[in-house]
Parts: sequence; structure tokens; C-alpha cells
Amino acid sequence: MSKKTTELREIAKIESERMREANPAQYFERNLHQLGFSDPEHALLQTIKEMTDNSLDATEVGSILPEIIIEVEETSEEITLPPQAGKVRKANMYRIRVEDNGIGIISNKIALSMGKVLFGSKLFTMKQMRGQQGVGISAVILYSQLTSLRPATIISKIEGEEKATRVVLKIDVDKNEPIVLEEQKIDWNKEHGTSVEVFIPARYTDKIDRYILELSIGNPHASFILRKKIEGKKSELAISRTTEKIPPPAKEIKPHLSSIDPGILQRMAEVDKDCKNLVSFLSKHFTSISPETAKKILKAARLSYSLPPNQIKADKVLEVARNIKLRRPKLEVLSNIGEEAIVAALKNRFKDAEFVAAVSRPPWTYQGIPFQVEVGVAIGGQEIANYANPKRITVIRLANKVPLPYDLSDCLLYKTVNEIDWKNYGLELNEKGVPVIPTVFVTSLVASKVPYTSPGKFAVASVEEIHDELVLALQELGRKIREYMYKKRKQESVVKRYEFFKGYYEVLAEEVGLITGGSKVNVNGILRKLFKEVKNTENVE
Amino acid sequence: MSKKTTELREIAKIESERMREANPAQYFERNLHQLGFSDPEHALLQTIKEMTDNSLDATEVGSILPEIIIEVEETSEEITLPPQAGKVRKANMYRIRVEDNGIGIISNKIALSMGKVLFGSKLFTMKQMRGQQGVGISAVILYSQLTSLRPATIISKIEGEEKATRVVLKIDVDKNEPIVLEEQKIDWNKEHGTSVEVFIPARYTDKIDRYILELSIGNPHASFILRKKIEGKKSELAISRTTEKIPPPAKEIKPHLSSIDPGILQRMAEVDKDCKNLVSFLSKHFTSISPETAKKILKAARLSYSLPPNQIKADKVLEVARNIKLRRPKLEVLSNIGEEAIVAALKNRFKDAEFVAAVSRPPWTYQGIPFQVEVGVAIGGQEIANYANPKRITVIRLANKVPLPYDLSDCLLYKTVNEIDWKNYGLELNEKGVPVIPTVFVTSLVASKVPYTSPGKFAVASVEEIHDELVLALQELGRKIREYMYKKRKQESVVKRYEFFKGYYEVLAEEVGLITGGSKVNVNGILRKLFKEVKNTENVE
Repeated sequence: MSKKTTELREIAKIESERMREANPAQYFERNLHQLGFSDPEHALLQTIKEMTDNSLDATEVGSILPEIIIEVEETSEEITLPPQAGKVRKANMYRIRVEDNGIGIISNKIALSMGKVLFGSKLFTMKQMRGQQGVGISAVILYSQLTSLRPATIISKIEGEEKATRVVLKIDVDKNEPIVLEEQKIDWNKEHGTSVEVFIPARYTDKIDRYILELSIGNPHASFILRKKIEGKKSELAISRTTEKIPPPAKEIKPHLSSIDPGILQRMAEVDKDCKNLVSFLSKHFTSISPETAKKILKAARLSYSLPPNQIKADKVLEVARNIKLRRPKLEVLSNIGEEAIVAALKNRFKDAEFVAAVSRPPWTYQGIPFQVEVGVAIGGQEIANYANPKRITVIRLANKVPLPYDLSDCLLYKTVNEIDWKNYGLELNEKGVPVIPTVFVTSLVASKVPYTSPGKFAVASVEEIHDELVLALQELGRKIREYMYKKRKQESVVKRYEFFKGYYEVLAEEVGLITGGSKVNVNGILRKLFKEVKNTENVE
Repeated sequence: MSKKTTELREIAKIESERMREANPAQYFERNLHQLGFSDPEHALLQTIKEMTDNSLDATEVGSILPEIIIEVEETSEEITLPPQAGKVRKANMYRIRVEDNGIGIISNKIALSMGKVLFGSKLFTMKQMRGQQGVGISAVILYSQLTSLRPATIISKIEGEEKATRVVLKIDVDKNEPIVLEEQKIDWNKEHGTSVEVFIPARYTDKIDRYILELSIGNPHASFILRKKIEGKKSELAISRTTEKIPPPAKEIKPHLSSIDPGILQRMAEVDKDCKNLVSFLSKHFTSISPETAKKILKAARLSYSLPPNQIKADKVLEVARNIKLRRPKLEVLSNIGEEAIVAALKNRFKDAEFVAAVSRPPWTYQGIPFQVEVGVAIGGQEIANYANPKRITVIRLANKVPLPYDLSDCLLYKTVNEIDWKNYGLELNEKGVPVIPTVFVTSLVASKVPYTSPGKFAVASVEEIHDELVLALQELGRKIREYMYKKRKQESVVKRYEFFKGYYEVLAEEVGLITGGSKVNVNGILRKLFKEVKNTENVE
């Protein structure tokens, strides 16, 4: 062998020996910025987002009216961050704690559910949920221990237990396992719920308040208390629920046969141990497949009804299933916000709004997955003027009732609002295409599986069916806006006419008075009588 | 216990029992769309991207001139896709194979390196590499078996072996392990290299050709052959290397103390078994830390030099390290493209370009990570006119020499080119801000760790230091453009003057001829002599 040959051989051996297995904790620890933990400002919001996601899910599953306390405390401890562009940067250590009145976690599962990445009940479930990928809270704890070296403290209690369990833990990244530092039973003045506390270097901005406000619009049946201590000053933002009606809990669904991947179908069939034959397999595991439909599909796929499931030919079955019209899945599995609740939440948030409206579309499906779109709008008033962005259309985006704080321009919800020509619906737009009257739109998507564009859950990907439903909802909302704007303009024109006639008649009355020498006519009184009828019938309120 | 109490308790128990562990294969199988496998068109490009990434890395590590063959064959097998918006959609099954002359994989590691998610040598390495996250090729195989049910076929051979090893495998998703279906030694007319073949439903667009062309600009020392068979028609795109100079291989680096996270430092110290004390620990594991600097840091952190590494206080050490000016890391660890190579590649690609230039900045660092920025431009000619997007500035974006095909508007490389006011550099812009003369920019970032915005590696995140270096590079490029445009305009004005005088003198000569009755003067000849000198001294070529 030549020297070169020996060298290349050696390099190949060395490279192969360097290969080893990584676990998900190691992977996500190195990729935390992609989950939203990119800097002290974003990390604070992401931490609160993941914690409140879990809290709302934990109340929803028990049909509990959520009471969520969020504590954001800037400690006096100052941390030096890695220098950037040669500059030394500082941030304060923050204590962040979120407490809920959810169902709680059974004590022997607390450490695993918090301290092991990809451990949870969510990844394998197809059901409308806030957290859906099984990474959220463990990413918070990974980030916290990475930056502050401190453990997380979890307190949880389930109904009927006398004491709560308090666990102080870190994650052993190289093993992807929790390291329990303390565990004890404690008294907790709460019947059930969970509290999670972490420390991270952070930077507070009013995006936090904004996030909680938007969260309350998506969850009008929840109460939120945001307790802050920033620069030594304590303050509190309390948002009460605007409805006592608990939305029906979302239901888990079976997959739809037309949209399942062949590889998944094949695997499901191969591991199935309960079903005797393909007919029972298909009708048991898939939504909207009766034994009759199963037989029809199998016949067209030239597979015998009596074959055991592991003899399936997934590609043949799907070739048939995707070419025939299968029944849609059941749509009553979602938990939407509701028109009334959106209107109430918007009125509560923007108290001096001139006009508030909402539209709920009926549920529909994309790729066999049920989803539902709702939109709302609030127009006019000082509070919206303060809230709305003057440079672009302001859209509160909610996905499974959770605000999406980033990646606006990539998000289907935002893009679709911008697609609509709001001029056609009576909204005057400035040169930037922003409504001249302060306006806030709300767009909400609930789905058994939200098509996010990235694992950080920042934006909704473009899906034709969702887009089409959004357009229909926004057009209907547009018609409500047009009606309001029409009445508003008519009323304004009545007022103008009134003012016009008033001036005219006053002069006329004066002239008549001078000529006739008679007493001054009460022009105002006469005109008011004249216009009263008009104003009443066209009242915009 | 009340009934409600029993219920909530039961729900909590059921939810806790539902929790289970997921492995990375299960996680990524459910999130493949976030890695770029969203539909037949994107999946094809992503597959080729991941395969060619691996091929280029496998040649680079052996300092081999890359010869990469990409086969994209549309088979006649038609697949029905999940219906969208009620419409039945079809795609053809594609066979995709990429073959390289890289170092190859040792036979007993072939199955693991391809068929186990998060297995490889890349995740724990800090070194300029194309693939960096250990998911790429296994994601391709996951997607392939999910959609086509077919296994992947890998052939690999290392130097000095008589036979190659051929492995046909699938991934057992529930175990995250390869399932080897076939394995044998075969003859392969190649000294070393790897070939990977998969089947996926795909849709071919010319984005594939574009991707390979851009890849060749980032890797001018590589030859690519793209063999296509689309709609029954065979065609081939062959791009020869434009330089024989192999770029120096990138070197692995140690982390920089100022930017490491406290949690990582703490863990490194806790698992260290070789170093006797903190001084040797810090100077061994971190770049640019001499024993003297280590002592200085430890002293300021009030830690004894002789403490064993596991007694470190990571927060204290970092508080000091981030507040003093540490030496920058060694910068000669990167493998850049080079100004000459960029110019040669652009001239080869756009053969009738009027002007081509490039600028390489010296290496620099962000957060202790070495990076280097290079930019290039090609202006004018029909080939660029065909290539460039008329609606926005065309920017070929390369990260570690790999094209970034998506997420343009989020990408620092694109955003920074758009920040520059090119009018100041003599480029006339239309109302959309696009240069009137067809123009293509190239931006290249090489780094020991590229700050991607998402796991799909689609866009470079905004990092101040990288941004500043890019601006400097583009400004220098701008000055070259301005110089060229100035000369071009001057020449154009000479031509205009020539044309003007020519007409004027022709009439004059005719008049003079008429009056004098003399023979017609050769105006052209005289003028050409007059302007020749001017043109020569101002020649733009």
C-alpha cells in the first residue's frame, strides 16, 4: 500500500471510531436556540410560554376553570453574558415560577415528566393540545441549568392527596435522566395543581405582559395573575376570566386512513396483536372506516379480508383509500374559543373599542386532521391605538389557544389577514396598508395537530385547507366591518348634515328675526326634532 | 371523597400512566416536515442536499478532489398522495442515488451511521462541517421508508479494501436501530467512496439543477454530474471543477472560555479524569488559555489553583473570564473558498458576465467561534439575466459551502445584502430596488458552528459580528463595482461622443465636399483615430 493509501484508510478508521450515539437531551441542549432560547429576552418569554402551555393543558384535561399565577422576579444577582462584538454584556438572574390548579402529576412521575427529554404523554397523541412535541418543559429546565447552574423546583398535588410532593431536580444530560436532589412531602394550600420554578439570566420587556394578555384572549375562561418584581419594583397584572363556561375538552382522535404515511400504516399493522384480520384492523384503528368500507378498500386492493394485519400491503391499501372519497373524520373533537367568548375577551381587553366582532367557522379537516378557524376584530379607541403596531396590520395569532409571538411574516395566520383587501370592507388604509382607524385582528386556529413551521412552535405553515377557511372567516368578518363602517359613516354624515343645517338655519332665523322683528327662533330644538328620527333608526350602537 | 374528587384523581392517574419515553427516531419521524421533508418537491431537494453534504464532508476529511454523481430517476410508478383540499394528488416514485469518492465508512459502522438517528461523529465536534447536527442522512432514510416502504441501499469502500460492502437497511423507528435486510461484499470499480440510494415520491423542478450549480460555486474544486431521467428523458448536467486546489481541511477546535455555558463548563470539569488541577483543566480544554491566564482567572475567581477540576465553580470562573479580554481563538481552523476560486466559479457559471469580483474577509469570531465571510458578484450578460430573479436582489447564500435554498427573508446573508444602498456603488436600481443590469451576489459564511435559525439548516440567524463582517465585505465589493461602473459609464460616454461627432462630421464633410467639389472625406477613419487613444486608456476590460 502506498503512503497515501495507508493515510486514507487510517482517516476512515479514525472517523468511524469517532462515531457515537447521542441522546435527545444532548441534541436539544446543543440546539436550544432553535426552541426559542436564543438570548435573555427571548428565553424569558419562551420559558413562560412553555410553562403556561403545560398549565392550561393540565386544567383542560380535568375541565377545571384555570387559575394561573406567573411570577417573574428579577433578582439582584448580575450575570456576565458571553461578550458580543467585543462588548461585555450583563443580565440579571430571574426567578420564574408558574403555578396552576390543574390535575397535578402523580408523585412518582414528577421527576421523569420534567427531567427527561422526550418523556410525556403528548408525542404519541393526536389531540388538540398546546404542547405537542414532548420537548417544552424539559427544554426550559435544560436551559435553566445550562445558564444558571440551578436546579428546577416542582411542586405537584393531585386531588385527594393530603400533602403535595416537592421535587428539586436537574437533568443528567449525558444520560437523559432526572437527577433528584431533594424530594419531600409538603403542605400546600391547594387541592390540586402544579408549580414549576426555574432560574435563568433574563431581560424583562413588556412583551411578557402582551403575551399574557393575548393568552387571555385565547383562553377567556382562565384567570391570570402576573406578579412582577423588576428593578426592585413590585407590580401585578391581574386578568379575570370573561366567561365561566369551560370549553369542552379536546378529544383524542384516530388517524384518517387517507392521510397516514404508508410506513406508519405498515408498522401499525405489523405490531397489532388484537385484530384477527385486516377488516377489523382497519375499522378499529382508523376514523370513519366501517367494516363495510374496510372490505370495499381491501377488495379494490386485492387483499383478502381474512389476512392477519401483519400481511397488509400498506401501499396497495393507501392507493385505494386515497383515490376514493372516504368519510371525513368526526369533527366534534376540537375545543374552540367561540364567537361570544372572543367578543367578550376583546371588549374586556380593549374597553373603549368602538366595534368588536368575531366569526367562528365550522370545523373542517386537512390531511385527515380536524381543525377549526376563528377570527375577531376590535376597531377604534385609545386602547387599541396604544396596542396596535402603526407600521403593519396588527394580528393576534393563536394556535391551539396559545399566542405565537415570533415569525410573523412566515405565518399563514398573518399572511392571510394581509391578503384580504380591507378597503373593500370599508376600512380606510394608509400608504403602508394599515387601517387608519386603530384596528386589531385576532386569528385562531385549533387543530388536533397544528402544522407548525418549526419545533419552536412560532408560526403556522401554509396549508391550503386552513388558508381557504381563514379567507372565508375573514370575508365574513369583513362584511360585519363593512356594515359597521357604513353605519358609522352614515351617522357621521347625519351629524355633518345636522351641523350644516344648524349653521344655515341659525343665520336664516336671525335674518328672519331681524326682518320680522319677531323673537329669536329655537333652531336647535327644531333641528334636533327633525334629525332625531334619522339618528335613532341608524344608530350604530 | 366526592365524586368530582375521585374523577380528577382518576384523570391525573390516567394521564400519568400514559406518559412514556420517545426516542429520537420517533420524534424526528413525526417532525420530518421541519427538516425540509414537507412535500414531494421539497423532499427531493432536501434528500439531495443531505446526501451531497455527506459526500463533500467525506472527501474533505481526506483532502480528496470530490467527484460526485447525483442520479435522479423518475420511475414509472405513480403514487397517490394524501388528498389536499378534496383533490386527489399524484406523484411519481423517484430513485435518488448519490455517489462520492470520499474516504468511505468502515463496514461495521455503515448500518449504524445510516440507520440510527443521532448516531455519528458530528454532533460532538466543533469544526466547520456541512452536516452538523447528526440527523441529516437518517432523516432521509426515515422519510424514504415512511413514504415508499422501501429500504435504503448503501455501498461503501475504504482505501485498501478489495471489495466494497453493500448494505440494504431500514430503520426500526420504535427501537431507533438499523434493520439490516441484506449485507454482502461486492466488487466496486472505485478505490474508496460511498453511495446511498433511496426511493421517495418526488417532483422534479429545475431547483435541483440550480442547487447543484450553487453547490459548485461553493465548492469549485469539486466535479458534479447530475444524471436525470424525467418523463422518460435522460439528460446530464456535468460541472467540472474550476480549480485543482484542494481547500485546507477544516480543523476541530476547542471551545472558547468566554462563550461556553456555565452548565457545560461545570459538566466538563466534573467528568474530567485526566487533569490534576483547575489550571491544567482550563489550559487543556479551552482555546487560547495558557497556564498563566488560567491562574489569573482562578485567582480573580478566588479558587485555589490546586483544586481538582470537579471542585470548579463554573459561574465564578465565567464571571471573571467574560469580564477580561481573553485572546481570540486561533483563526486558521477554517476552510474558506477564496477570492480567486469564487471569481473562477462565477465566470465558469455565467460565461458572458461583463464583470465578476469577489472579496474574502479575514477570519473573525463570534462567541468564541471562528467564522469567515466572503462575497462575490457577477454583473451583466444573458446568462445572469436568465438566472436572476427580476423581483428581488438575487443572492446565492452559502453556509459552510452549502447553498441555503429556503427561508430567504429570514436569513442574515440575504438581509445584509439588502441593507446596502447599492445606488451609492453605481448600481442603478429599479422601483423594486433590484439592479437594472442583471446582477447575482454570492455570500458565503464558513464557521466552526454556523448559527442556523432552525434544524433544517435553511437560514443563518442574525449575529452582530457576522453582520458587521458581511457589511465590510459588501462595502469593499461595492467599491469594486463602483470602479467598474465608472469605467463602463466613461466608456459608454466615449462611445456616445463618438456617435455624436460621427454624425456631425459626416454632415459637415458632405457640406464641405459640396462647396469645395472635392472628394468625400473619410470621417469614420479620422474619428476612429481620434477616439482610439481615449478608448484604450479607459478600457474597462
